[in-house]
Amino acid sequence: MKKFVAFGEVMLRLSPIGYERFVQAKQFNVFFAGGEANVAASLANFGLDSYYVTKLPAHEIGQAAINEMRRFGIKTDFVVRGGNRIGVYFCEKGASQRPSKVIYDRGASSIAEAKRDDFDWKSILNGAKWFHFTGITPALSDNCIDITLDALKVAKESGVAISVDLNYRNKLWSTKKANEVMTELVKYCDVLIANEEDAEKVFDIKAGKTDVKEGKLCDEGYKEVAKELHNRFGLKIVAFTLRESHSASYNGWSGMLYDGKQYYKSKKYDINIIDRVGGGDSFCGGLIYGLSSGMDNQSALEFATAASCLKHSIEGDFNMMSIDEVQNLMKGDASGRVQR
Amino acid sequence: MKKFVAFGEVMLRLSPIGYERFVQAKQFNVFFAGGEANVAASLANFGLDSYYVTKLPAHEIGQAAINEMRRFGIKTDFVVRGGNRIGVYFCEKGASQRPSKVIYDRGASSIAEAKRDDFDWKSILNGAKWFHFTGITPALSDNCIDITLDALKVAKESGVAISVDLNYRNKLWSTKKANEVMTELVKYCDVLIANEEDAEKVFDIKAGKTDVKEGKLCDEGYKEVAKELHNRFGLKIVAFTLRESHSASYNGWSGMLYDGKQYYKSKKYDINIIDRVGGGDSFCGGLIYGLSSGMDNQSALEFATAASCLKHSIEGDFNMMSIDEVQNLMKGDASGRVQR
Amino acid sequence: MKKFVAFGEVMLRLSPIGYERFVQAKQFNVFFAGGEANVAASLANFGLDSYYVTKLPAHEIGQAAINEMRRFGIKTDFVVRGGNRIGVYFCEKGASQRPSKVIYDRGASSIAEAKRDDFDWKSILNGAKWFHFTGITPALSDNCIDITLDALKVAKESGVAISVDLNYRNKLWSTKKANEVMTELVKYCDVLIANEEDAEKVFDIKAGKTDVKEGKLCDEGYKEVAKELHNRFGLKIVAFTLRESHSASYNGWSGMLYDGKQYYKSKKYDINIIDRVGGGDSFCGGLIYGLSSGMDNQSALEFATAASCLKHSIEGDFNMMSIDEVQNLMKGDASGRVQR
Amino acid sequence: MKKFVAFGEVMLRLSPIGYERFVQAKQFNVFFAGGEANVAASLANFGLDSYYVTKLPAHEIGQAAINEMRRFGIKTDFVVRGGNRIGVYFCEKGASQRPSKVIYDRGASSIAEAKRDDFDWKSILNGAKWFHFTGITPALSDNCIDITLDALKVAKESGVAISVDLNYRNKLWSTKKANEVMTELVKYCDVLIANEEDAEKVFDIKAGKTDVKEGKLCDEGYKEVAKELHNRFGLKIVAFTLRESHSASYNGWSGMLYDGKQYYKSKKYDINIIDRVGGGDSFCGGLIYGLSSGMDNQSALEFATAASCLKHSIEGDFNMMSIDEVQNLMKGDASGRVQR
Amino acid sequence: MKKFVAFGEVMLRLSPIGYERFVQAKQFNVFFAGGEANVAASLANFGLDSYYVTKLPAHEIGQAAINEMRRFGIKTDFVVRGGNRIGVYFCEKGASQRPSKVIYDRGASSIAEAKRDDFDWKSILNGAKWFHFTGITPALSDNCIDITLDALKVAKESGVAISVDLNYRNKLWSTKKANEVMTELVKYCDVLIANEEDAEKVFDIKAGKTDVKEGKLCDEGYKEVAKELHNRFGLKIVAFTLRESHSASYNGWSGMLYDGKQYYKSKKYDINIIDRVGGGDSFCGGLIYGLSSGMDNQSALEFATAASCLKHSIEGDFNMMSIDEVQNLMKGDASGRVQR
Amino acid sequence: MKKFVAFGEVMLRLSPIGYERFVQAKQFNVFFAGGEANVAASLANFGLDSYYVTKLPAHEIGQAAINEMRRFGIKTDFVVRGGNRIGVYFCEKGASQRPSKVIYDRGASSIAEAKRDDFDWKSILNGAKWFHFTGITPALSDNCIDITLDALKVAKESGVAISVDLNYRNKLWSTKKANEVMTELVKYCDVLIANEEDAEKVFDIKAGKTDVKEGKLCDEGYKEVAKELHNRFGLKIVAFTLRESHSASYNGWSGMLYDGKQYYKSKKYDINIIDRVGGGDSFCGGLIYGLSSGMDNQSALEFATAASCLKHSIEGDFNMMSIDEVQNLMKGDASGRVQR
Repeated sequence: MKKFVAFGEVMLRLSPIGYERFVQAKQFNVFFAGGEANVAASLANFGLDSYYVTKLPAHEIGQAAINEMRRFGIKTDFVVRGGNRIGVYFCEKGASQRPSKVIYDRGASSIAEAKRDDFDWKSILNGAKWFHFTGITPALSDNCIDITLDALKVAKESGVAISVDLNYRNKLWSTKKANEVMTELVKYCDVLIANEEDAEKVFDIKAGKTDVKEGKLCDEGYKEVAKELHNRFGLKIVAFTLRESHSASYNGWSGMLYDGKQYYKSKKYDINIIDRVGGGDSFCGGLIYGLSSGMDNQSALEFATAASCLKHSIEGDFNMMSIDEVQNLMKGDASGRVQR
Repeated sequence: MKKFVAFGEVMLRLSPIGYERFVQAKQFNVFFAGGEANVAASLANFGLDSYYVTKLPAHEIGQAAINEMRRFGIKTDFVVRGGNRIGVYFCEKGASQRPSKVIYDRGASSIAEAKRDDFDWKSILNGAKWFHFTGITPALSDNCIDITLDALKVAKESGVAISVDLNYRNKLWSTKKANEVMTELVKYCDVLIANEEDAEKVFDIKAGKTDVKEGKLCDEGYKEVAKELHNRFGLKIVAFTLRESHSASYNGWSGMLYDGKQYYKSKKYDINIIDRVGGGDSFCGGLIYGLSSGMDNQSALEFATAASCLKHSIEGDFNMMSIDEVQNLMKGDASGRVQR
Repeated sequence: MKKFVAFGEVMLRLSPIGYERFVQAKQFNVFFAGGEANVAASLANFGLDSYYVTKLPAHEIGQAAINEMRRFGIKTDFVVRGGNRIGVYFCEKGASQRPSKVIYDRGASSIAEAKRDDFDWKSILNGAKWFHFTGITPALSDNCIDITLDALKVAKESGVAISVDLNYRNKLWSTKKANEVMTELVKYCDVLIANEEDAEKVFDIKAGKTDVKEGKLCDEGYKEVAKELHNRFGLKIVAFTLRESHSASYNGWSGMLYDGKQYYKSKKYDINIIDRVGGGDSFCGGLIYGLSSGMDNQSALEFATAASCLKHSIEGDFNMMSIDEVQNLMKGDASGRVQR
Repeated sequence: MKKFVAFGEVMLRLSPIGYERFVQAKQFNVFFAGGEANVAASLANFGLDSYYVTKLPAHEIGQAAINEMRRFGIKTDFVVRGGNRIGVYFCEKGASQRPSKVIYDRGASSIAEAKRDDFDWKSILNGAKWFHFTGITPALSDNCIDITLDALKVAKESGVAISVDLNYRNKLWSTKKANEVMTELVKYCDVLIANEEDAEKVFDIKAGKTDVKEGKLCDEGYKEVAKELHNRFGLKIVAFTLRESHSASYNGWSGMLYDGKQYYKSKKYDINIIDRVGGGDSFCGGLIYGLSSGMDNQSALEFATAASCLKHSIEGDFNMMSIDEVQNLMKGDASGRVQR
Repeated sequence: MKKFVAFGEVMLRLSPIGYERFVQAKQFNVFFAGGEANVAASLANFGLDSYYVTKLPAHEIGQAAINEMRRFGIKTDFVVRGGNRIGVYFCEKGASQRPSKVIYDRGASSIAEAKRDDFDWKSILNGAKWFHFTGITPALSDNCIDITLDALKVAKESGVAISVDLNYRNKLWSTKKANEVMTELVKYCDVLIANEEDAEKVFDIKAGKTDVKEGKLCDEGYKEVAKELHNRFGLKIVAFTLRESHSASYNGWSGMLYDGKQYYKSKKYDINIIDRVGGGDSFCGGLIYGLSSGMDNQSALEFATAASCLKHSIEGDFNMMSIDEVQNLMKGDASGRVQR
Repeated sequence: MKKFVAFGEVMLRLSPIGYERFVQAKQFNVFFAGGEANVAASLANFGLDSYYVTKLPAHEIGQAAINEMRRFGIKTDFVVRGGNRIGVYFCEKGASQRPSKVIYDRGASSIAEAKRDDFDWKSILNGAKWFHFTGITPALSDNCIDITLDALKVAKESGVAISVDLNYRNKLWSTKKANEVMTELVKYCDVLIANEEDAEKVFDIKAGKTDVKEGKLCDEGYKEVAKELHNRFGLKIVAFTLRESHSASYNGWSGMLYDGKQYYKSKKYDINIIDRVGGGDSFCGGLIYGLSSGMDNQSALEFATAASCLKHSIEGDFNMMSIDEVQNLMKGDASGRVQR
């Protein structure tokens, strides 16, 4: 079984029941989630030996985070315990014209305050085939930048494939700092994944005529951006998720991929949304699975898109679709007929 | 902060969980609601000094109604306690071709049996800028007609702007009595709001070729009705909500307004419905906010329509959208993208 | 009141809350259901004297099944108690491109292991007007084939109308055995109902160019199949449900009927799905009600289609729509407007 | 199977979840209950042919009441549909020193406004062995007094045994009117059941030194009261429930019975309370079952006391203990050991 | 109506459902609570004009905290909005020998980082009769010490009565710092409330032979402590809550009070616990109500003890007992009999 | 970390919410449990390398069982997938005099139909320190007897310590067969655990004057039984759980141990029960932990008794108490005071 390693935060996600607004909530659904943890969950679910590396407080809420990861097959052997708190995010589900809303309370978390010697990357990455991180983790703290760099260096030396999801978070750092740091980190990467805003925000590379709010996407623009990213960082693969946001209830979803030679575009799915948070992460998970299991680029892209399409039908950030289920959709069965 | 006053009933709303039918219900969700109370909630939410005037029994269910209003910012200083019961309505949520169903149990409520001297309108309306009521309240009892008249007279004398939502309820009174009473009451009003059926039911003014069941609405017809209402009662503003009922899950929604000079039509929204009860009330709330805060007529109408569009995504009758959220939609962001 | 009798299994249905996947579930919603029991529920709901015949274990879960049937008006006087277990099925609700999933655990149930002398059909069918079964029941066990035959013979002798829903279940028997057995049983029937796959699976009669996964249905094909079934078994009525599976959230739904002389096609409904399990059964229920209450064939078909359209908006397998509600939809009111 | 008939109200009971106070409740648990309906439920559960006679509105909440009764085996053939509303009672569960709280909203219910010709007692009581009512029903309205009298006369003529539970409700009528009416009605009765307060409130017969609030009960006092009731009304059996209210969580519970010759006292149970509402009714149910199935007086009393002891462990008003379960406790197994 | 002011933190309390452990939780119940906020809730509930002063972030979770306070009658006019986060505490309910468990995540909250000029105490305390704080607030930050001092000085100058609950929290500060700071602050106070551990921890005043874990309390020891506190700080009233912790399910509860002349001891209650968090705060609330409404010391103590006894039967930190309910218990009715 | 291995069934446990009876349930709580799995959970929780060996169907409910075990730290590497079903047990929680009720539906489960070559015991037990099974597993099927024997032989050869919990289940086999089989299997064991009924049922060794229903236990009787078991099977340790069943809500609980030389008796705990299912298993878990970690016999017994006392406060079969929490209770802190 292939060993996959992701590094980042895992947060406590608190969501009102159904479509309640925060101010109506009497109960919160409890999930645990995080950009990279979601990818680890996807890969555990696809049968990889999927390790998640993070730091969590020693108390029971920290333990609950570990338990949830274990439950869905993530290996937690390298999770460090200590520090003061687990980051929290409150997530209210939107509907129709009302957008979903996320409130972060992630400051001073155990992972943000982790230290370089908390993690022995030689041992963690021993035997690993793939390492994944996102632009969120280095945004957490300067320590996290250093730790990520440590990981990337060991990974590079050991021939571990490296992927990054740009995932720009404006509440965590400025575009200026993101640009500086990510420019350094992306140099180590083989695969870069981004959505329609990230490349512009982080690297000031603009996708021609795309207007995010209108939900209109322009293929040509994306191609330019992909090419520029590919060239600037010497990447093997650049991939985008293309979301058409018709409303909080209904989205178009597809992906594209550029390998330096050719542009690939996936099938587009029209989605009735159950929970779209983690959609991009499930695309990363699908793409990594596809690329690392020897699919050709078009198939890997289709796998990633189908997997992440299906994620939108699942409560919580973790994608819980099996390889078979993803492949059924890839093969064209989107009929939703009852499987008996 | 502007003082706004509404008068009417507040009821206990009992709804099965999710899409359960009444006969399946093992639990009811508990809301408190009422045509005018819903407007008061909208205005409290938009930051006005929003007072609700009603009568509630002295027991704990009456107290719970007060608590719920207070929770969402409504001032309850003028709520009278006494009488025997709080009105109840059972509300089953429909889906697709199955309509929502409302069963009223509102007879002999404290407010229906309230007396004129329960309310000291001079003191209640002291300093108020706006007074709102609906056609439901005078339908509750003859006492309620008298009390409403008392309020209207004091309001008129004090220069308080007055709005009415026709809201015809055939279970409460005949069209004949409604016609008589509302003809008297509307004379005091500055602003009248109605939906596609009310004008015909109450004042026998027919909107040309509209067939409510078909969900088809005819602009010309509405203009005629608006003009007729405007002229007959000397109103400043007549506004309509225009609902296209495609199914219990999916509606078109827009508004129109006539100010004696010009017809204004709002943007139309296609809505995936979470809970449509209170939709018209949230339009009133938005319109009153818009008009009383100095928006021009088109903007006030757009604000009202956007606010009430968003209400359809919220469980319960109270609209819980902030001014910012409404304005974002007015400005065209209906993409439902996650707000982080 | 007309006496209606159905025979078959009633199972414990366990469903995760909302759209949770099985592996996420902390609670299961508890329903009781079964192909024929669902029809009995429809008919009880339409006011018939609706008896359900089955065998259930003597313990409290068996009792709960009886209680649930009684609750919805089914007469349980002829339910036999004994045997070891009630069949169970786990049912996960799909959404958008993710299909619903059913896991059966129905082996060795009390009804599968029932014996011929558990049921005194003379007494059970005394005074009955209609008998209904499906292709599921004889698939449960050889005993069940014999018991069904016993019932059919008594029914035939007594002039009871007989209907069958083909309902092929590939986990219960082979197409070969199904063909043998159903060929024998259908000979007793007056009315046969099937969906797009059953006729092919059970009788190897193919509906020309229909591709189930694509959700495309070909009218001509269905007519051929209906004609062939009608001729082969001397049926009075052959009816089909025609489902267009766009996704797990959205389906087209209509029916057709052939009476040996003419083809009837119903109105088609576009449905936002709440719970589609039991949709076909509610069509049977509607059709039996229509035919047995003297509607003409077109009306009976429209009633069946409208009733089953509405079923898709209801949680659980049992259809809970009244005659009035079905007729409102038949008459064209699909607007979903609030009924006050 | 013996036919048993009870007459009275069935109400919608709305209870906050767990130990929440009314003002905290976001959901209410939905039960249906009523003094006599609870007795009917007990007897249906013990296998009698148990009919409940009442009037319920024609709407779906009325239907839900019928469904709930049917679910638990009560025959609803003689339930009349019509009138305006079902009575409601709100019930908050107490704990420790905090008492449970009941708020009634039962005015103008269908049963309170029922008319004499709604009920054909000859047909209803045809073949019946036992008729039961409580002091609540005649307190609902003068019509209800007449209807009760009608029933009693037919029952008396037909040799049906008659039981009454005094059940004084001070919110429904004065002690004076209760005295007048019940004096008339009790004359028809064979069996009278009461708790520690009823005899005093209704008939001004005082149980010597009992102080209800102190939870102290005096045997001698009860004997005097029983004797006086027996003599005054020519009763065959007078029975009391004896509750020692230590707190809302913990009660002592026993019963006594007087047959004109001898005083019987039951075993006393110390109870950890789950839901004590309906405790007295379940005693009536047990006693009627015991007496009508030929138990001797001591056994009938022990059965009644054990049955009602167990009721305190059950959510809702209906007792759901089987004969076997009651008898196990009667025989002395109060260990609560797991039954596998 | 008397104006009461409390100052401190209000936190988001997250509790697993029922008796689940943290690691089992799939949902958290949402409460808002805080030592002083709980007192404010008590006093609002007793009808005082109860103001709470704190700082909360401008986001919706902060708003939800305000809404919850408003719901239960607390005036929030002086709540400052801003800062980064609301403190959180996770609270797992224990049972029998398993203790309840609290995990704090309160660092860097808006109130801990509030500044002196956030609060205009002249205006806040204008017209106030009473000011209350606890030892928790100055422990939050040095700023909070200064703000508290500001408040105390204005209160003192204005003749506002001042009470403090020692409430030592070892996770927030050392006993040494607590001693220094509280020595300064308590000098301003009229009334001091403490439990069995606080006086020792904060002021190193030991209650002779009390062993907290054993749940044994020694009256003499408490008297010594009370006297010492009284003398050291020139207090008018020193009061203690006396908890006998038999288990997480069952406690003894009483209070004592010393006024410099006499020792008063309350009745002792044996409590079946529903939720004991906030028990001490509800004692403070009861005592302040009693003392400020002119009760004599014994009555005020009994009122406080009865009120806080009843709090143990209520979910969440806020006490929701009315004056009548408290007085019923004071008068000796602890029977828990149903109130109809 | 020590490797521990348990072998047996894991079942789906379905329990109504709170204290509902089966016939009231609309939802079931979902747990996964089994005699040996519960022990494995205890040991995983205490930090051992705890492996569970079973066979589960390949479908998602089987996967959910694995996920739940992983969640709580059990290693599932040796779980075999296949077969038809997971055993189910329905578990209704009793209260006061009403006992809890368990309905088994475990026939034809994957583990009952497992084959000897499904398990490679050499590899499974490689490096193990301890092996545990119960009398339930060999009762499932003859195959299970063989598989257990295979395991015992390998364990014995490899010097793995072996423990057995007698756990007689009369629904699975006769006392005669149990006697035969267990006589053979217990010969391999070092440690035997039993409750008050098992020794008598399985080996016809009677504990003198104990009357289980009375909840009275006689020390002398237990000593005789322990001695007899010790001698008959050459055991190192015989231990008993001693349950005093006062009611379903309240039990006494203690343990005793005999090592061939001395009798040890634990402290006795009086327990308010939350969920007593799995109580005996948690005693086994505690005892194995104690003995295998080098505690002396008295300490190991106290640890086992304290751990299992605490289990009674936890929902579900798995014990979720940490070593620290158990030791706090062992040391005498049963006060249930809030841990902050």
